[in-house]
Parts: sequence; C-alpha cells; structure tokens
Amino acid sequence: MRFFFLDEAPNPLLGPWTPPKELQHHVKALRFGAEETFLLLLPDGSGLAARVLDRSSLELLGPTEVPKLQLHPTHLATAWPKGKRAEDLVIRACEAGVTRIQPTLFERSISGRESLSGNQIKRFQRLIRETCQQLGRTELLELVADPLPWQEIRATEPRARAFCLHPGAPPLSHIVDKLAPSCSLLLVGPEGGISAAEKIQIEDQGWVFVGLLPTILRTEAAGPLAAALIQHAGMDKAGLTPKK
Amino acid sequence: MRFFFLDEAPNPLLGPWTPPKELQHHVKALRFGAEETFLLLLPDGSGLAARVLDRSSLELLGPTEVPKLQLHPTHLATAWPKGKRAEDLVIRACEAGVTRIQPTLFERSISGRESLSGNQIKRFQRLIRETCQQLGRTELLELVADPLPWQEIRATEPRARAFCLHPGAPPLSHIVDKLAPSCSLLLVGPEGGISAAEKIQIEDQGWVFVGLLPTILRTEAAGPLAAALIQHAGMDKAGLTPKK
Repeated sequence: MRFFFLDEAPNPLLGPWTPPKELQHHVKALRFGAEETFLLLLPDGSGLAARVLDRSSLELLGPTEVPKLQLHPTHLATAWPKGKRAEDLVIRACEAGVTRIQPTLFERSISGRESLSGNQIKRFQRLIRETCQQLGRTELLELVADPLPWQEIRATEPRARAFCLHPGAPPLSHIVDKLAPSCSLLLVGPEGGISAAEKIQIEDQGWVFVGLLPTILRTEAAGPLAAALIQHAGMDKAGLTPKK
Repeated sequence: MRFFFLDEAPNPLLGPWTPPKELQHHVKALRFGAEETFLLLLPDGSGLAARVLDRSSLELLGPTEVPKLQLHPTHLATAWPKGKRAEDLVIRACEAGVTRIQPTLFERSISGRESLSGNQIKRFQRLIRETCQQLGRTELLELVADPLPWQEIRATEPRARAFCLHPGAPPLSHIVDKLAPSCSLLLVGPEGGISAAEKIQIEDQGWVFVGLLPTILRTEAAGPLAAALIQHAGMDKAGLTPKK
C-alpha cells in the first residue's frame, strides 16, 4: 500500500480532512481514485487509512496497521561530512536500512563539530521522508542533532554488536555471517582516519575492526555500505518481497 | 603511492616536463616535496614515475609499475537515469569497483534511450578520474556511450556469471558465495521494472535473478550495491590493505 508521512496528526482521525499542500500534490500526481485507500503515517509511527474524497480533500478511515520492512536494527555513528556530502550520507543511510544516524567526533574530525542547526535538521528530515517514501520504508531514519565523542557511543547500545570500519581489516560479512541477528552498531572515522591512540582505545572498548572493499571509501559511502551488508546478510535465503 | 591520471602521455617520458594546470594545482595542494615520487597514469594504463622539480615543472623518471586494487571484473548493464542521478550512478559504480558500465534499454525505459553526447562523456570521464583518484583505484571505470538493448548484453560477456536484479529474489550473496571467482555481469532494469514478458526472456537467456535489500532501491543505488556485494564476497578472509 502507498503511504505518506505527516508532520502532524489530523484531529479527529475520522471523516473529511483537508491535507497539507504537499500531500494534495502527491495524491494528485499519483492519480489515486476514490476507490483506492492509502496510508498516512503519523509522527508517532502509527497509521491512518485514507482515500480521496474530492479535488482537495481526503476521507480519513481511522487507525490501521503499518506494514514494516524486515530491517535489522543498525545504528550508524559516523564522522560528519560537509554540506551536500552530508545529504548524500543521509540518503544512503536511508537506503541501507540504518535505524539511527549519530554524528560522531574523533581526534581528527574537522567538519561536524557543531550540533546541526534547526534549518539543517528541517532539511535533513524532509530528505529522510522523501527518500523513505521512495524506498517503501515506513519507519523513518532517526537523525541525532548533537555530535557525541566516539568514546560515548558504545554505551548508547551496550548490547549491540559493535563494528568499527578500518581499511585492511577482515571483511565485515565474514564476521556478520557468524552472528545471531541482534542490534548492530557501526563506527566510522573521519577522512584523516582514526589515530593510533584511538585505535587502541577503540579495541579496548570491544569494537571489532572490519573492512569493506579494496577501494578507499569516503564517509558518505562507507557507513551506508556497511549497513547494507548487514541488512543483506540478515535476509531470508528465500528472498523477501518488499512491501509496496 | 599517490597517483594522477593524465589525458595525454608526455613526450619524451624522461626529463623536465611542465604538467597541465590541473595537475600543477594538485601537486601544489598536496605539498609534494622534491624527494617524494608519485605516479602519473597514462591513457593506455601504463605508469610513469615523477617528482617535483620546481614551482611549475616536474621531472619525469621513466616508466614504472602500476599498483592495482584486487577487484573482481564486474560489468554493470543498467537502465540509465536522468541528469544528476546518472552522475551519482557513475560515482557509486567507481566506488563499488565496477569495471565497465553499459547504459541498457528495456521495454519500459524512458530516460537513457539516446547515446551519451560528447559533452556528457567528457563530464562523466572527468568525474570518473576524480573519483578513482580519491578511491585509490588506478584502473578507471570504462563508460560505454551507446545504449544496448538488454537482449544483446549476455553475448558481450558469454563466460561471465550473469545476475539480474529483481525485488524479492533470493539474496545475491547466498548465490555468489557458492561461485568460483570469475567475471560477473549485472543487469538492472528501469524504474517501472522489467515487464512480465521480459522476465521470461531474461530467465531463458540464463540470467539468475537476485535480490539486495528489503528497501526498493533506485537505479543509481541498486547496481552499485550489487557490485559492492560481489567485490566484498571476493575479498580475502584476512582482509586486504588498499594500496595508497
């Protein structure tokens, strides 16, 4: 079923309703007929069935179940690139099924030292909604606005499997294959790499170093590819049919 | 060793040489000293050692071996998206270690029906050089300018393993794991999907249908992710150290 994310829940959840301009536009572009129901996703994650009433209004049909993709919970704690590259990172993280993305600070971090501004968050959240809609992903990527030093990341998910990307380390999939499915935590350092001192501390915290490809990937490519490998490894042998 | 791609081979290959502006700029930005040698990659794929002579000239030290990443030969035959999205596809294909990218036509193809123009090729090739430089990839992605109907793709690499991406098919890595390493061919359909008739014909040609993730990926994400999964599966258990 097609779905749309809403910024605010309609009140009441039943009966005729005039949707925001953006949604009116979508509904028109997709040529929904009066007989076809679709799904509105509320900020709390719950679903609301709806259908077209006339040119500018919908009929709300009440709460309904939300179909979910079978994604493995994966948190990405990553150095934060500048400008357009951060947008690319967020888009790729949505595609790869990342659950939460956390800007993270390292000794050699240059960009991403400040919290995301209100405008940045707005722009990223709009991008996340649009991307997840295209992906058929009903659960949005959670974006954390305040950077954390890498030292504090492990404690945010103490029970997760913790992987730190490092060029030349054994391939991620060789390690993931042996794991029972659970939550995964991914740590991605800055362009200048993690320092020698950090490498020792990271190992001491119990992170496992893993590699991806022979190519040297930029930040916006590395974390999402690692998450995609984890999601892919967790897929059913029979193949999953993505829900429309 | 750092390297730079050249559009034209210097003549002769030894002695003082004034490089093109772009390379002068790079060499300055990276602050190479006179003692440090680096690699110039010629259009035929061969290498030339060089070092800084003075502010605007280099000394060519003669032919030298080119270090190569251990990439599995992977040809991507893919529906071609529009504008900026095609650039994104090409960047991601470089990252994923794709050897050759071939615009490909399907029944429902809308964009990508024409050959790439001279200007488009120039722009893509510049993007490929810049991206491969960042990736530490000394062998450029080969870009084919003329689209081919999918029916003709299989014959371009008759001995390759042939995979066609299809939502809901068994995960690629479950199949790749069982393969001896050889050349791989990837087929990626257009946004509207391959038609039912095409699906039967594709199967008849011996392509194996494979899936990637529960999310519905766009063209620029799908092919490169499949190629990355193949490269990753082919990596040494011990981990490869990318060559600088």
